Amino acid sequence: MQVNGRAYNSLWYDPVKQQVFIIDQTVLPHQFEIVALHTLADFCRAITSMQVRGAPLIGVTAAFALAIALRDNASITNEACSRLLATRPTAVNLRWALQRVQRAIQNLAPSQRAKAALDEALAIHAQDIQCCEAIGDIGADLLQRQMAQLTDNKVLNILTHCNAGWLATVDWGTALAPIYKARDRGMALHVWVDETRPRNQGSSLTAWELQQQGIDHTIIADNTGGHLMQQGLVDLCLVGSDRTTANGDVCNKIGTYLKALAAAANAIPFYVALPASTIDWSIDDGVSEIPIEQREARELTHISGLDADGNCCEVKIIHNSPVANYAFDVTPARYISGLITERGLFNADRDSLDSLRQQLQLDGQTTQKRGNTNG
Amino acid sequence: MQVNGRAYNSLWYDPVKQQVFIIDQTVLPHQFEIVALHTLADFCRAITSMQVRGAPLIGVTAAFALAIALRDNASITNEACSRLLATRPTAVNLRWALQRVQRAIQNLAPSQRAKAALDEALAIHAQDIQCCEAIGDIGADLLQRQMAQLTDNKVLNILTHCNAGWLATVDWGTALAPIYKARDRGMALHVWVDETRPRNQGSSLTAWELQQQGIDHTIIADNTGGHLMQQGLVDLCLVGSDRTTANGDVCNKIGTYLKALAAAANAIPFYVALPASTIDWSIDDGVSEIPIEQREARELTHISGLDADGNCCEVKIIHNSPVANYAFDVTPARYISGLITERGLFNADRDSLDSLRQQLQLDGQTTQKRGNTNG
Repeated sequence: MQVNGRAYNSLWYDPVKQQVFIIDQTVLPHQFEIVALHTLADFCRAITSMQVRGAPLIGVTAAFALAIALRDNASITNEACSRLLATRPTAVNLRWALQRVQRAIQNLAPSQRAKAALDEALAIHAQDIQCCEAIGDIGADLLQRQMAQLTDNKVLNILTHCNAGWLATVDWGTALAPIYKARDRGMALHVWVDETRPRNQGSSLTAWELQQQGIDHTIIADNTGGHLMQQGLVDLCLVGSDRTTANGDVCNKIGTYLKALAAAANAIPFYVALPASTIDWSIDDGVSEIPIEQREARELTHISGLDADGNCCEVKIIHNSPVANYAFDVTPARYISGLITERGLFNADRDSLDSLRQQLQLDGQTTQKRGNTNG
Repeated sequence: MQVNGRAYNSLWYDPVKQQVFIIDQTVLPHQFEIVALHTLADFCRAITSMQVRGAPLIGVTAAFALAIALRDNASITNEACSRLLATRPTAVNLRWALQRVQRAIQNLAPSQRAKAALDEALAIHAQDIQCCEAIGDIGADLLQRQMAQLTDNKVLNILTHCNAGWLATVDWGTALAPIYKARDRGMALHVWVDETRPRNQGSSLTAWELQQQGIDHTIIADNTGGHLMQQGLVDLCLVGSDRTTANGDVCNKIGTYLKALAAAANAIPFYVALPASTIDWSIDDGVSEIPIEQREARELTHISGLDADGNCCEVKIIHNSPVANYAFDVTPARYISGLITERGLFNADRDSLDSLRQQLQLDGQTTQKRGNTNG
């Protein structure tokens, strides 16, 4: 997608420099900075500190991390995987991407591993773009159908939470891909952007993306969505997913569940856009089976912005009180109108997702059987 | 209540200096500052800028504002009232308090008005304290009954939104009064404090209050309450009200509605504590009849905190994107388990509130008839 009129991916491999580059998402929207990742430690830190974030992008980043680590030490696979898996406990794509790279190198001699791992990481990178573009096309069809149902409004009002845009993937995004595609088709859209405390990915990343692509949007406090839905100012909610269960429960950024409840209470469609790789087939019940990551208090107690001189500055906004910082919540499948995947639109239920799993198994894209929790 | 071990009200009249003093709530918790209000303009600015806020305290402040204005000009009643009514459109207490002072002076000669108005303001001030203490006692009984129902937990976990503490009233508070009273009875409590974006009254005011009174609490992002309720970590929700309709709908800080939906979805009691003066008997349906105040974008785009040197500093966190800042939302009565008032616990429905209205009319505390909207 475009940044200041030039096309970027959120992460790319430079074959000349043989290096991975990322957009540092911790300093957006105040600064636009490109960072090179050299070592396994660099990659781990980039994921932990959320210089890269978003379930699909975390997976791609982990695949390159393993490839780069193998270039330095062809026997580091197990150690590298366990260090990478420890960076973010919730995103199932991370495990999925590492398993793909491991499978690609499992029967190879040490000298062949780095090259094969890099090829697999590049394939995951390319497929992520294709996958998100497909989600965009399928989701845009849905938005067009929703638009056709509007009686008195020529603009489709969409509410989104957190950032499931191109910055959360390699390109296009998940929840924002249908919006970008619909805009390219000439649809008139307006996006309500939840600020998404405590890390403000909505006001910092989603708003920045939409602004760069010239899409009409308004930032709101996370508290606002219920009122907007009650007043008929939202036609559809569209969010991403960090982990989706085999029953269709969705684990996504904390606060997603509250918006799903408000959508249900006001008969507003609530859709989730996700790559099939986000589905954890080993888990049925998200509420009881998905452990929720708690992140450091500092994300809530401190905040960065620009001071009066335009310098980036961090201020402390909470003093002396204890803080709890849960990063995700689970939206039960019954509140979800549908799951937009690269394979089509599915119902958030076991039967519909079983048909998706069968497609994936036929294509050899998952060998995972449903079993006990390993999340 | 206590600040650094010394008893304060949020607003008081000094009869020697003949001045009104307030705690400046815009600089808490970073600084504790007392401000004197001299002129009508001072009072209007204090309400508009939210140096004083909270429905009951706004009413008390407006009463003193009219009294002080009359001291300077005994014929200023109408002008003063219209300027004061324009400061905050939602709080019905403001209108209620001004009507009380107007009634107290309506048949008096100009020379008698200032003294009578001041007496009435002082009466409203004293009655607000009594009223909140009664809410505290009645609410604490409720909390004790809830506590008795807990099977496996010796601590009652309460979630609150925004600040309905003693800072929102003269003393004790509304939603926090039962908590202070329950603590005084020896109950073990823990309060989940919603940050309450965009003005952060939860993390800045409620947490500060609870900390000063030594009550166990944890600050959370507004997005978190749904997850906590889903996981059984909240036993009861308790919030205040800026305006309550004759049917029991509650207009309170934006985001209250989302928490009420989550409470209903998880079968958790959701109570609202309010002085009867907060009830707007002229309105039935809150969703369609209460206009929702929109405040300036700057509340969302900028935030104050302490920089690395400990100096108070404002930073800009949102750039270039449009912002909408709705200050309140309406929670329909069907999501409310009960209304805790100084007259007892009432159901959030017309029949129950009619019995309250009859009590008030018998005591001459309201002459207002149910009629068309005048909000």
